[in-house]
Amino acid sequence: MQRTDFASIDCSIAKTMAVLGESWMALILRDLFIGVSRFELLNSHLGVSRKVLTERLGQLVEQGLVERQRYSARPARYDYVLTDKGWDLCDILLAMTAWGDRWTTGPDGPPATLHHHTCGHITSAVITCSDCGQQLRTQEIDVVPRGSAPTCHTREGPHGRL
Amino acid sequence: MQRTDFASIDCSIAKTMAVLGESWMALILRDLFIGVSRFELLNSHLGVSRKVLTERLGQLVEQGLVERQRYSARPARYDYVLTDKGWDLCDILLAMTAWGDRWTTGPDGPPATLHHHTCGHITSAVITCSDCGQQLRTQEIDVVPRGSAPTCHTREGPHGRL
Repeated sequence: MQRTDFASIDCSIAKTMAVLGESWMALILRDLFIGVSRFELLNSHLGVSRKVLTERLGQLVEQGLVERQRYSARPARYDYVLTDKGWDLCDILLAMTAWGDRWTTGPDGPPATLHHHTCGHITSAVITCSDCGQQLRTQEIDVVPRGSAPTCHTREGPHGRL
Repeated sequence: MQRTDFASIDCSIAKTMAVLGESWMALILRDLFIGVSRFELLNSHLGVSRKVLTERLGQLVEQGLVERQRYSARPARYDYVLTDKGWDLCDILLAMTAWGDRWTTGPDGPPATLHHHTCGHITSAVITCSDCGQQLRTQEIDVVPRGSAPTCHTREGPHGRL
């Protein structure tokens, strides 16, 4: 069976999943985000095989999410650091953390808390509108394909169309 | 090679990826979100095989993200509708759309725009702090594992530890 090339689909979610649509990718980016930046540390912290880690780090570099920065010449050793594109993708990890904390948490509570330097409090990600700043509820959004007139969908209402 | 059970990892991102970590899952949820709710329509709109679509819809029902609502008794036909857990997961799709629009868009612009009913304007998802309401920048967050004291990580600063 031929694998679907999600990067070729004209949809930002599909293109994002083409980058992130493998669980190790998300966990490697998570570790880079929290500051685990060297191959041996990533290997031991994630418990992923060296082969898979090498492949995934290569893909992240190729896709421009991660850069290699040499910190030792002999032997050649690298830090793996997020690029602006990679840091920006961490927004998605924050949204995942918020959902996962709400819906998958066991009796011990969430596995970690996030502390926001700016305000000094425990935080979680809230999705807001770039224009009005209100919380962005998916039921209050119309999706309008490029070149189309708006269509309507609501949770209880008529079905939208793409 | 044994597959990793990401749902068993004590991390909200891993548990979320256990649900979402396959590109068709995200695209099926996207279609349910925009109102494509019937098997035949999903099949033709997504261009996914009936076998894969049947499997993925079954997984989404099993995981409590989607419910089947019968709209025809003979023959038995169903609408697939998002549950509260499923609607809430659409927050992650909005974050993916924003990132994808920023980093994967070609010369024709984003494949779709989002219109926010509440304010009447074109919108995109901005991640904000649940406490202070400011934009949540990943460089301004400490991740504190359950039962640990806060550690520090900054973009340029010392490496954090889990």
